[in-house]
Amino acid sequence: MCSVISRVKPVQRALASTLRLRTNADGLNYAAAQSRRFCPGLSTGAQPLWVTSRSYCARIATTDGLFFRQLFEVESCTYTYLLADTDTKEAVIIDPVLETIDRDLELIKELGLSLKVAVNTHCHADHITSTGPMKKRVPGLKSAISKLSGASADIHLTEGDKIPFGRHCLIVRETPGHTDGCITLVTGDQTMAFTGDALLIRGCGRTDFQQGCAKRLYKSVHEKIFTLPDECLLYPAHDYLGRMASSVGEERKFNPRLTKTMEEFADIMNNLNLPNPKKMATAVPANLVCGLQD
Amino acid sequence: MCSVISRVKPVQRALASTLRLRTNADGLNYAAAQSRRFCPGLSTGAQPLWVTSRSYCARIATTDGLFFRQLFEVESCTYTYLLADTDTKEAVIIDPVLETIDRDLELIKELGLSLKVAVNTHCHADHITSTGPMKKRVPGLKSAISKLSGASADIHLTEGDKIPFGRHCLIVRETPGHTDGCITLVTGDQTMAFTGDALLIRGCGRTDFQQGCAKRLYKSVHEKIFTLPDECLLYPAHDYLGRMASSVGEERKFNPRLTKTMEEFADIMNNLNLPNPKKMATAVPANLVCGLQD
Repeated sequence: MCSVISRVKPVQRALASTLRLRTNADGLNYAAAQSRRFCPGLSTGAQPLWVTSRSYCARIATTDGLFFRQLFEVESCTYTYLLADTDTKEAVIIDPVLETIDRDLELIKELGLSLKVAVNTHCHADHITSTGPMKKRVPGLKSAISKLSGASADIHLTEGDKIPFGRHCLIVRETPGHTDGCITLVTGDQTMAFTGDALLIRGCGRTDFQQGCAKRLYKSVHEKIFTLPDECLLYPAHDYLGRMASSVGEERKFNPRLTKTMEEFADIMNNLNLPNPKKMATAVPANLVCGLQD
Repeated sequence: MCSVISRVKPVQRALASTLRLRTNADGLNYAAAQSRRFCPGLSTGAQPLWVTSRSYCARIATTDGLFFRQLFEVESCTYTYLLADTDTKEAVIIDPVLETIDRDLELIKELGLSLKVAVNTHCHADHITSTGPMKKRVPGLKSAISKLSGASADIHLTEGDKIPFGRHCLIVRETPGHTDGCITLVTGDQTMAFTGDALLIRGCGRTDFQQGCAKRLYKSVHEKIFTLPDECLLYPAHDYLGRMASSVGEERKFNPRLTKTMEEFADIMNNLNLPNPKKMATAVPANLVCGLQD
């Protein structure tokens, strides 16, 4: 496990350009799409979840001095997360969206935060990240994405990497399956996890594009997310039904897909027959260069 | 200050019917509308807000065992809040919306919560509350709204009333100005306040319908909300820009309307020239009987 702040590399434009061309050629190679408007069909006979005295509370704190704010982009139903150390003011933003860059930077400016890292949980197919334009407007800001995403960025993340901000940090867990490069970011105290499209509330990201693999996603969720404490709050990259958070305990009990066996899960995922995300053709090439559109 | 659970009255259909007729006759008497898509014009030269070690964190907790979940209804951009005691399972829902009743009741059922009170922060004009239909589906559920709203309900709330759920409670602060009957609900430990349309994030509810009074709203916010601790998180009934929460400290510093003098505020509010909410003609009569549509 090592801090990623010191591992900044120059933006790899040549590689990104190659990847973009390859994506344009076959259309789907780097597609990272999600299951929109998925209506969870709750298993019959589910029992109420036993809750401990600190379960499912969005106000659980074992660590003081952590600023946390969830933000929403209405067109792609994407959640952006802003975390900061309230003393040092160092901040990290997760999955920022192009359309809401002004709102996000205004809040950061108002609060006097020093934005250090803009991290994407994966190469999104449904919206363009604001990471690139944000780098131009915030001196010193570093972009970060998983190494396995194939996308260019200042920081390439792998399993166990830490993204520090003041006395806090996010720790990387690789959770492939929706795409090769999906990661889940867990706070140091394991009270919050940002799951990207790997695990959604009562759902999960689709696995029917190239890179997608239902069995791999099942394994990722069960080994890397469901092993977190039951009371760990889960914050996904999307929700299409107005839900903002869940918890490991809830999803372990009530997720209509992930509570099935691996074989049943794969069968469900391989027969969703969903249309492609509307913005995929433009979003994926842009996101492969972390939204650096020039 | 007294617990309201024991103050349940029969639903006052005769009164509600009279009020509904009066509303239909003059159209606007009981309108409770909000300023949609208000774009805050941040004052020039605003300084970054000094943050204490526990400010602005959605995970602050001085009380364990509190379940909290924020939910969103996309058409009216309304936030619904579910709070519960994780031991006793007693729960309260704030501002539930008709369109999302199934989602809300599904979550309550999954978690094994015992929903005791459905409370509305005021008589909404932009959406119909699900309180009435919810009462039919949840045995023993009581509806609550302020006495000054003029709406019928099982419980009529006034200043200082407590809505207990397990070892927790919400305490009523009357915050009129958007409508006569607006209330803000504050958790017993003053870490969270549900402000309805009295105070929105970087904005506030409109005051240009009958009942609305800009100076009264200014006084309400300054005397009843801005007197809460700076780190108290604020959860409004609406946001139209994808923001989920704020804090007393942030709004005291950055609210572009409420940081003005009372005279300047009144001048802004009296010149908004906004159209009526689309659903006002149907929502207000329905909400005057707490959504009991029969």
